[in-house]
Amino acid sequence: MLKKLDHIGIAVDNLDISIKKYEQITGKKPGEKEVVAAHKVATAFFPVGETRIELLKGTHPDSPISKFIKTHGEGIHHICFEVENLAQSKIEMSKTGLQFIENISEAGAGDSKVAFIHPKSTGGILIELVEYPKSAIDG
Amino acid sequence: MLKKLDHIGIAVDNLDISIKKYEQITGKKPGEKEVVAAHKVATAFFPVGETRIELLKGTHPDSPISKFIKTHGEGIHHICFEVENLAQSKIEMSKTGLQFIENISEAGAGDSKVAFIHPKSTGGILIELVEYPKSAIDG
Repeated sequence: MLKKLDHIGIAVDNLDISIKKYEQITGKKPGEKEVVAAHKVATAFFPVGETRIELLKGTHPDSPISKFIKTHGEGIHHICFEVENLAQSKIEMSKTGLQFIENISEAGAGDSKVAFIHPKSTGGILIELVEYPKSAIDG
Repeated sequence: MLKKLDHIGIAVDNLDISIKKYEQITGKKPGEKEVVAAHKVATAFFPVGETRIELLKGTHPDSPISKFIKTHGEGIHHICFEVENLAQSKIEMSKTGLQFIENISEAGAGDSKVAFIHPKSTGGILIELVEYPKSAIDG
């Protein structure tokens, strides 16, 4: 069960130029730029309603984002849906025949867990699923 | 000012096959399939949170969707944000230097109005803006 669209991940050539473009489009400033060393990317997020636009710039030629841009140019790299329970979602979706990309760490940013549905199961789109840790308030 | 992400438009080769895939992904049935003759497309929508996934199949080789698939294959064709006032958003965004695709009808589905920001202003992504008519309750 998908709770909501968590973000749209956009691969960009130059983070500062793209931040300026999305400031013009959204009329907002992004959150702080952040480097995620493990994934070799620098990111910036723009909230829009309940979702976010994530700008992604590879920080190394080996980065999946750098490779994506080399092949496809700038554009949407993935979309990410939030789920309540990642393990259960993977089991349910796998039963329907959807395939996941194997051998990718489930460790996302913070204490989140992530998984990727293979583009061949989705009509060419890389779909990420994320489960966020429950806060103390949620119990 | 963007209110929310209204939908993600995905170009597909075969609407029925893709509906099945997105039933597996979202765990939901789509709304009724609809043919929009003016745009030469058949569509089906899956709601997810406050947004929707729109599957788009060209109904004619001349359809923008058929042409997109011929060049890019299946994938995300556009994303659409809802705005309060389309005319005002266009004026404000144009002032910042964003370019719109000209000579496209503003008539969307129902009584909605739409406009498209040129992909060269957005880093290669076709961004649609939509204004929905105010309901009697709102207005």
